[in-house]
Amino acid sequence: MSALGIEEPLREIAERRYHHRHRFNIRMHEGVLTREELRGWILNRFCYQRHIPIKDALILAKLESPKHRRMWVRRLHDHDGTDEDEGGIERWLRLGEAAGLDRAELWSGTGVLPGVRLAVEGYVNFCRLRGPLEAVASSLTEVVAPDLMATRIAAFEKHYTWIDSEGLRYFQRRVDQGRRDGREALELVEQWVRTPEDRSRVLAAFEFKCDVLWALLDAVEHAYRPESRQADVG
Amino acid sequence: MSALGIEEPLREIAERRYHHRHRFNIRMHEGVLTREELRGWILNRFCYQRHIPIKDALILAKLESPKHRRMWVRRLHDHDGTDEDEGGIERWLRLGEAAGLDRAELWSGTGVLPGVRLAVEGYVNFCRLRGPLEAVASSLTEVVAPDLMATRIAAFEKHYTWIDSEGLRYFQRRVDQGRRDGREALELVEQWVRTPEDRSRVLAAFEFKCDVLWALLDAVEHAYRPESRQADVG
Repeated sequence: MSALGIEEPLREIAERRYHHRHRFNIRMHEGVLTREELRGWILNRFCYQRHIPIKDALILAKLESPKHRRMWVRRLHDHDGTDEDEGGIERWLRLGEAAGLDRAELWSGTGVLPGVRLAVEGYVNFCRLRGPLEAVASSLTEVVAPDLMATRIAAFEKHYTWIDSEGLRYFQRRVDQGRRDGREALELVEQWVRTPEDRSRVLAAFEFKCDVLWALLDAVEHAYRPESRQADVG
Repeated sequence: MSALGIEEPLREIAERRYHHRHRFNIRMHEGVLTREELRGWILNRFCYQRHIPIKDALILAKLESPKHRRMWVRRLHDHDGTDEDEGGIERWLRLGEAAGLDRAELWSGTGVLPGVRLAVEGYVNFCRLRGPLEAVASSLTEVVAPDLMATRIAAFEKHYTWIDSEGLRYFQRRVDQGRRDGREALELVEQWVRTPEDRSRVLAAFEFKCDVLWALLDAVEHAYRPESRQADVG
């Protein structure tokens, strides 16, 4: 089965269902989010960020080849950091601080919405309970994430100048990390897919992951948009 | 609860139940194992070795703090290797080759005894299903392993000169790695233990792990000892 056999349908699904299409993300990149909405997103998305190394450790435990684990373990370092690199979790905390959030508040999990918790838990459990093919396939959003990151950096620098650009290092680092992660995961999945059923499982895992990201933004949009809060007060 | 509160009872349990007490290990260190017994042990123990990074990835997925994961992830590198270091799995394969076993045979899993498979699976599932305290506590045999390694190296160099000493690098590296791993795991467990019930769980996890190692040697001893094979033939 050719590379095209997986990547093309993935990109088609992404075109419709990846969260770059979500209204909250569109508003983020248009520059119209309030400070409170943006802070709400950063705080809630941290629940997702801090679980990335956990889901990656669960995937690691499914990889039987030391060579594959050596490749995948780098994702843990990318997020947890090393002696040389602060890591993605630390960079997200600094994004939060640049947006006026307290690091202790971010760690505490206070304010994380039920829909966000459930989306993140669903994603971690998917990686815990499914086989290696589907668990790895659920990470394939990295194939399309770098383009989103590039757009986001430009949008933040243009519209949200109240956030110090130092705070954007998470997004900047994810451009290259994401490209490499996406390429590696795609190669692994292409090696493993043998039957049309395998291919269907890969695409379903990818759709599931799109749903996780979509549900996260749904919850944030619903909770933080100014009109809904006014309605609640009224 | 003081350090003594955990380490002393652990060492007491180890004194009775760690596999240095097992007759097969005693015979190994006395130098009386046949080549076939030793090869049988190396081949079967490889089933255990190749699962170490898997159980460590499962433990990683239970550690909520990036600091703790950064500490624990080094165990994966120790076994899977890095660009600079071949890793413990590769060193074990070289031990096998030095003893006349084929690397492909070791990877194939052919000849791994049912009791060994079940012991290893039991250990991996313990780390998969228990909480972080018990999962980490099951690794505490590293507190006593380095002394066993030192004895083993001396025994191999003295008695099994048909195995090239280059093949002993696994044991040599485990002396220092094990000391560091044992110390770190003990510190983590000491930080987490708050109640007598926690302490009991730690000791039970340690006993469980001793049983895993013991069952592995039981299976190997039973299958390979010359008298039992003669009896089978007769």
